[in-house]
Amino acid sequence: MEAVKCLSGGASLEANAESVLRTITPSLDPTRHKGQAGKIAVIGGCREYTGAPYFAAISALKIGADLSHVFCTEGAATVIKSYSPELIVHPILEESYNISGVNDEGKRDISKKILSEFDKWMERFDCLVVGPGLGRDPFLLECVSKIMTRARQSNVPIVVDGDGLFLVTNSIELVSGYRLAVLTPNVNEYKRLVQKVLGCDVNDQNTHGELLSLSKQIGNVTILRKGKSDLISDGEKVQSVSIYGSPRRCGGQGDILSGSVAVFLFWARQCNSAAERESTISRTNPTVLGCIAGSALLRKAAALAFEHKKRSTLTTDIIEHLGQSLEAISPAS
Amino acid sequence: MEAVKCLSGGASLEANAESVLRTITPSLDPTRHKGQAGKIAVIGGCREYTGAPYFAAISALKIGADLSHVFCTEGAATVIKSYSPELIVHPILEESYNISGVNDEGKRDISKKILSEFDKWMERFDCLVVGPGLGRDPFLLECVSKIMTRARQSNVPIVVDGDGLFLVTNSIELVSGYRLAVLTPNVNEYKRLVQKVLGCDVNDQNTHGELLSLSKQIGNVTILRKGKSDLISDGEKVQSVSIYGSPRRCGGQGDILSGSVAVFLFWARQCNSAAERESTISRTNPTVLGCIAGSALLRKAAALAFEHKKRSTLTTDIIEHLGQSLEAISPAS
Repeated sequence: MEAVKCLSGGASLEANAESVLRTITPSLDPTRHKGQAGKIAVIGGCREYTGAPYFAAISALKIGADLSHVFCTEGAATVIKSYSPELIVHPILEESYNISGVNDEGKRDISKKILSEFDKWMERFDCLVVGPGLGRDPFLLECVSKIMTRARQSNVPIVVDGDGLFLVTNSIELVSGYRLAVLTPNVNEYKRLVQKVLGCDVNDQNTHGELLSLSKQIGNVTILRKGKSDLISDGEKVQSVSIYGSPRRCGGQGDILSGSVAVFLFWARQCNSAAERESTISRTNPTVLGCIAGSALLRKAAALAFEHKKRSTLTTDIIEHLGQSLEAISPAS
Repeated sequence: MEAVKCLSGGASLEANAESVLRTITPSLDPTRHKGQAGKIAVIGGCREYTGAPYFAAISALKIGADLSHVFCTEGAATVIKSYSPELIVHPILEESYNISGVNDEGKRDISKKILSEFDKWMERFDCLVVGPGLGRDPFLLECVSKIMTRARQSNVPIVVDGDGLFLVTNSIELVSGYRLAVLTPNVNEYKRLVQKVLGCDVNDQNTHGELLSLSKQIGNVTILRKGKSDLISDGEKVQSVSIYGSPRRCGGQGDILSGSVAVFLFWARQCNSAAERESTISRTNPTVLGCIAGSALLRKAAALAFEHKKRSTLTTDIIEHLGQSLEAISPAS
C-alpha cells in the first residue's frame, strides 16, 4: 500500500517513496570517516519537555547519521544525556523562569553568550531541527530566533516542528524565502499557519491548491503537512505519501519525523550532485525528497512496531524499527 | 580477512592479531582476586560530554577488567553514574564555567584539591585513559596535565584519545619519551599531531615512514593511527590491523578502542613476564601488543554488531558484542 502522488498545477504525477529512499541513501563505504554520513543538531528541551528532542536526535542516529547533538536548557540536559550516551547534549539555553531577577542588560549578555556558544558548533552541522520540546518561553524563543538567523546566514538547512512552528508562525520572516527550510505541521499547527499566512481558514475542498499557495506565500519553503496522507510541497508541486503506518497516535512520532527528515534532506542534497540519481527523482527538490523519505520510513517503522505491540505501541518502539525498515528498503550491503 | 602487517625499516613482517589477542588474554583462574584482571581509570566527562567516558569505561569492564573508574566534573558524574551501576565515578574535576568568580589563588587551591583527590587513587590503577569527553576547558586541561604528570612519575600507562590529544598536541612534553604512553589519533587528530611535531603536512605517499618518524620524534611513544587499516608504531616498526570491521562511522567507536587498549596493554605487560608467550610476540613491545589487540577486537565486535543492526548500528550495539568477539578468539574455558 504505497503511493507518492504528485500534482503539479492540474496535472498528476506518481512517484515511489521507496525508490526515493533507495536513491538518496548513501552507500556505506569503508573509506569514509566519522561525520560524512551526517551531523545533526536538535534545538529543543526545556523545563517541561525532554522526550521530544531525545526522540528526534536518536532517530537521526538510528537512520545512519554519525553524530547527533541537542541544544537545550541545563535542567533538560541532565535528563536527555541520561536517556542515551550516544547523544552530545549542550546545556546552553535559558528560560525566563531561571533569570527572573536579571535586568535587560543582563539578559542581553546571557543571550549573547548563548549565541556565541552555539556559533562554535554551527558550521559543523549538516541540518538543524528546531522545535522538539522547545516550549514557549519568550526569552528562550528570542534566543532560538537568533540561532535560526545564524543558521540561515550559513546555509544550514532547518527542519521546524512543534513549538518551533509556534515561533515561526508568529515570526514568518525567520524562514520566509529560505529554500532550505522545512515546516512539518500537524493538523492544528497547519491551521494556525494558514490563518496567519493566508488569512483564511483551512479549506478541505482545495487541500493541494491551498498547500501550494501556502508554500509559495512563504517563499517556497517546503511544507510537510502531516495527516492520514502526508502532503509535501515546495510551492512548485504537491506530493503525497500514503504508505500505511499505524493507527496509534501516541505523542512523539512527529519528533521521529523531524529527526529523520533532517538526515534524509542532507543525504538528498549530497546525492543531488551525484550522477547515480534516477532522472525523475533528480528533477525533484532535495528538500522535498528528504520529506518523502522521512514520511515513508516513519510509516513503515510505525506499521512494524504496531504489528508487535498493538495498542501499547509507543514512540520508543517505533524508533527500534527504524533500522529494520530502512534495511528492508535500502539494504546496507 | 585478517592481517597484521609489520614493517621494520624496509623489511615487512606479518603477524596475527588473533594470536596476539589469545596470547595476552590472561586465563581465568579461580584463585585470583578482584583487581588482578585490571583496574582502569578514565579521565573525561564534562559539561558537554558524558557518553564518551562511559563508552571507554564500560568497554574495559566488558572485555574483562575488574574495576573501571571515571574521573569527571560533578554535573557529568550524575549522568555517567546513571548509565551504569558498574562504574565508579569520581566527581572531582572543575571547569572554568563553574569557578568564574574565583581568583587565581582560589583556583590554585581547587587545582591542588583535585590533584590530592586523584592521588589517593592513582597507585591502584593499571592504566589511565585520558581524553574521552574531556572537553577543552583551559582550567580543566591544566589539572589533567598535572594528573598525567603524576601518573607518569608512578609509571602508570596512559592511553590518550579525543580532547586528550588536543591537550598533548599542544603540550607534547606531557608524553614525550614516555614509553608507556599510547596516542590513538583519528584522521584529523593525526593531521594536527604531524603538523605540530614534524612541522609538515601529512604525506600519504609515505604513511609508514611518517608514522615511524612521528613516534621516534615523540620519544618512542606508541601511536595507533586510526583509519581504513589501523597503523601502529612505537618508532621501531609499523604494524597494521586490517580485519574487516563496520562501514558505520557513528561517534563513540574511538572510546571503545581507548578503553580496550587500556586493558589489553595491561594484560600484555603482565604477560611479558610470563613464559607462555610465543617468541615472535614476546619480542614485541607490550604497548604495541595492547594496540593490536584493541584494534582487532573493536573491528570484530563492530562487524558483528553491523551484521545485526546494519545502518542503525550505534556504539552501544558494538559494546554489546565485545564479549562474544573476545570469546570467539580467546575462549574463557
